[in-house]
Amino acid sequence: MSRILIQKALIAPLVTLPELTSSEQLWFTGDILIEGQYIKAVGKDLSGYCSAGGGSGSGKEAGTLAEKGNLTVLNGQDYLVFPGFVNCHTHAAMTMLRGYADDLPLMIWLEQKIWPREAFLEKGDIYWGSQLAVLEMLKSGTTTFADMYFYMEETAQVALEAGIRACLSRGMVGAGPNRETAVQESESLVQTWHGQGEGRISCMFGPHAPYTCPPEYLKRVMALADTYGVGLHIHLAETRQEVEDIRRQYGLRPIELMESIGLFDGRHVLAAHCVHLAENEMAILARHQVGIAHNPESNMKLASGIAPVPQLLAHGAVVGLGTDGAASNNNLDMLEEMRSCALLHKVAQMDPTVMPAPLVLELATKRGAAALGLKDTGSLAPGQKADLVMLKLREPHLTPLHDPIANLIYAARSTDVQTVIVDGRIVMKDRHMLTMDEERILYEAAVRGRALVER
Amino acid sequence: MSRILIQKALIAPLVTLPELTSSEQLWFTGDILIEGQYIKAVGKDLSGYCSAGGGSGSGKEAGTLAEKGNLTVLNGQDYLVFPGFVNCHTHAAMTMLRGYADDLPLMIWLEQKIWPREAFLEKGDIYWGSQLAVLEMLKSGTTTFADMYFYMEETAQVALEAGIRACLSRGMVGAGPNRETAVQESESLVQTWHGQGEGRISCMFGPHAPYTCPPEYLKRVMALADTYGVGLHIHLAETRQEVEDIRRQYGLRPIELMESIGLFDGRHVLAAHCVHLAENEMAILARHQVGIAHNPESNMKLASGIAPVPQLLAHGAVVGLGTDGAASNNNLDMLEEMRSCALLHKVAQMDPTVMPAPLVLELATKRGAAALGLKDTGSLAPGQKADLVMLKLREPHLTPLHDPIANLIYAARSTDVQTVIVDGRIVMKDRHMLTMDEERILYEAAVRGRALVER
Repeated sequence: MSRILIQKALIAPLVTLPELTSSEQLWFTGDILIEGQYIKAVGKDLSGYCSAGGGSGSGKEAGTLAEKGNLTVLNGQDYLVFPGFVNCHTHAAMTMLRGYADDLPLMIWLEQKIWPREAFLEKGDIYWGSQLAVLEMLKSGTTTFADMYFYMEETAQVALEAGIRACLSRGMVGAGPNRETAVQESESLVQTWHGQGEGRISCMFGPHAPYTCPPEYLKRVMALADTYGVGLHIHLAETRQEVEDIRRQYGLRPIELMESIGLFDGRHVLAAHCVHLAENEMAILARHQVGIAHNPESNMKLASGIAPVPQLLAHGAVVGLGTDGAASNNNLDMLEEMRSCALLHKVAQMDPTVMPAPLVLELATKRGAAALGLKDTGSLAPGQKADLVMLKLREPHLTPLHDPIANLIYAARSTDVQTVIVDGRIVMKDRHMLTMDEERILYEAAVRGRALVER
Repeated sequence: MSRILIQKALIAPLVTLPELTSSEQLWFTGDILIEGQYIKAVGKDLSGYCSAGGGSGSGKEAGTLAEKGNLTVLNGQDYLVFPGFVNCHTHAAMTMLRGYADDLPLMIWLEQKIWPREAFLEKGDIYWGSQLAVLEMLKSGTTTFADMYFYMEETAQVALEAGIRACLSRGMVGAGPNRETAVQESESLVQTWHGQGEGRISCMFGPHAPYTCPPEYLKRVMALADTYGVGLHIHLAETRQEVEDIRRQYGLRPIELMESIGLFDGRHVLAAHCVHLAENEMAILARHQVGIAHNPESNMKLASGIAPVPQLLAHGAVVGLGTDGAASNNNLDMLEEMRSCALLHKVAQMDPTVMPAPLVLELATKRGAAALGLKDTGSLAPGQKADLVMLKLREPHLTPLHDPIANLIYAARSTDVQTVIVDGRIVMKDRHMLTMDEERILYEAAVRGRALVER
């Protein structure tokens, strides 16, 4: 079994470790040992483990990779190590439409720009668009993403090859001509891909939204999800218009409607956006421990609104962070998303103490993993899957180092991410991708992006 | 005279060029010729200038530097070239307090954290804090900054050496014990430094704010500014508290009070923040063409509020963009500030068409230069000072390239900035600083930062 020892790093474990004093819980200087897919140990000095395993040498320079039998030692000096980001909601292959249409009214953007081009997307576009998205995500420290789109077996294949953790769903529009195709393709996706990659790939059913999926269709999808023992990924309460339309049609607000049909009963639900919520809807989401994917930058850019995240957290809701697709963001950068999340809610509440840095980091990692229903991802606790990031601290914009968590949330850039480990495997080392062909991806995505808008 | 030719770049000139069609005005593929401090020509093909000057070769690889006599040729393929960013409001040396205190109520942050540490700041801290700030700014594409702090001759010296353009003012608190010292030091700064570096360094008087400078003190400062023929840099209407306090004391709102004492009459004023404005105050600011430094991230982080920028622009006001100091941002990254500006106002107005990408780029460049009263900076028009940025486009998060301006505002990262030219001088080439000792700065700033909080 392969082992990795990270030594002398600044570590933000995002879990209470008995060895640490209370002032060290947020961050401390120490070591992390990885065995196979899992974090084996976290502590102030694990050099004992190291020599027991056949070698005690550490790399002489920061980040140097020293092989000792089956032990890889990474020098963590001048690095901050934290759990990999969990991007709770995106549409990976929409990278192909990045920057294609911006600053437009929502319905013109959708009807005249995005939907017509999406109609042209072919399997190959989804494959290379997903490659591009996963490349961007891994290079910016995201180790898990939740996706909803179509031709999802392409995205699954990319995730399998690239080594990222993925939670995939085929978007289902129950009101359209593809309602049955969507059911068949969703079943096929779950049958073929759920649990692949030693559990790295998981699947959900992806009914798009209440306004595109009528209750009887949703109930069919719920039954299917239960048959396969998987969850649901859905957009809920993204815009004012949606709330008005649903209320006019059903006499209930979106979350109320979903509760009334039993959507939240006995299965895991991942609900994207949740921007426009009444107080009782927040209570419903919290009571059922629905995973909420908060997408501040997409909600800002499309002028959807400001999700009541501090209030949701006060209700005890499970909130994670997502970027949404690159057509409405326009990147898949979770570091940036954390900053926008922290800043947006402070000014929205007119309270600078709202969404402090350590809490925002939790949203982007362990709370996000919980929102996806992943129990063994999102912190550096022993026994967790080894998904983590080494971020370089010795940069002008991260100097001086009064508070590494504050620097991470309020000053860092995703290019500070140097080394990324997913499922115990080093997928990026010193910004070199070990699992993806970056040059080929840039070439294919550029060519296909050009062709797409010329079709 | 040294000359630089950039060839075959994507160029966003931010000025109407007669050679271009209307669809090319936002960006086109072409060349830029720099002679001495100035932009000599911008066009689709300047190879004629090149051979006339003694050589026509271009670098074979993107960004390769080929010297031809006194001509430096830069291959611009796969680069976006645009005017350098103008950071309209910062406190450079506050980088020393980056991440020292965050997520706190404003008065606790100021009174218990920031002010006590500022009291310990020595000249050497200001020097190395300014080095750190200017390093960060140049590396992220900022070519001009407006600063207000103390020991400003240290900051001036740093700007002179580093090659950045700077507009400097000594902060003056008229209500405190240093009121006379501030006057003397301000005069000395203006006398010694205004116009230095072949005009790269300019100075202003820096009365801190209406709530720290009573009217009679402001009038003295106004007279001094007129004596020296320089402008004023002041904080205005940053918080609700300020508006209430000023109204209680003087019966007028801050902008009204400033107009009533003639602050805006016949001299250039740079007003930072302008968050809380009545309609008539927006008209006052527009009528006097006051330069407004909009600092969205600082206003969000401190929960000061959302400046009415779309409304100010509709009034015809002169609005630029700034980061504020690194204690309330916490970086000096104008790319990020542009994104926050665009996203914040869309959601604040619930209108995705507000603050479109090309307008936000203007705020960060030419409108910012106008806010500082700089007439020959901020666009790539022939005759302008040669301050510009070459940004690398061939990155995953900037692929595909449907719209380079949208990619710049909504997806780019400041590390995409590869080469920076200020006043016709290459100060950073392929991310290597040519005018600053990055390693030394990181060392000194880290040591002094640690010492500062231990004092």
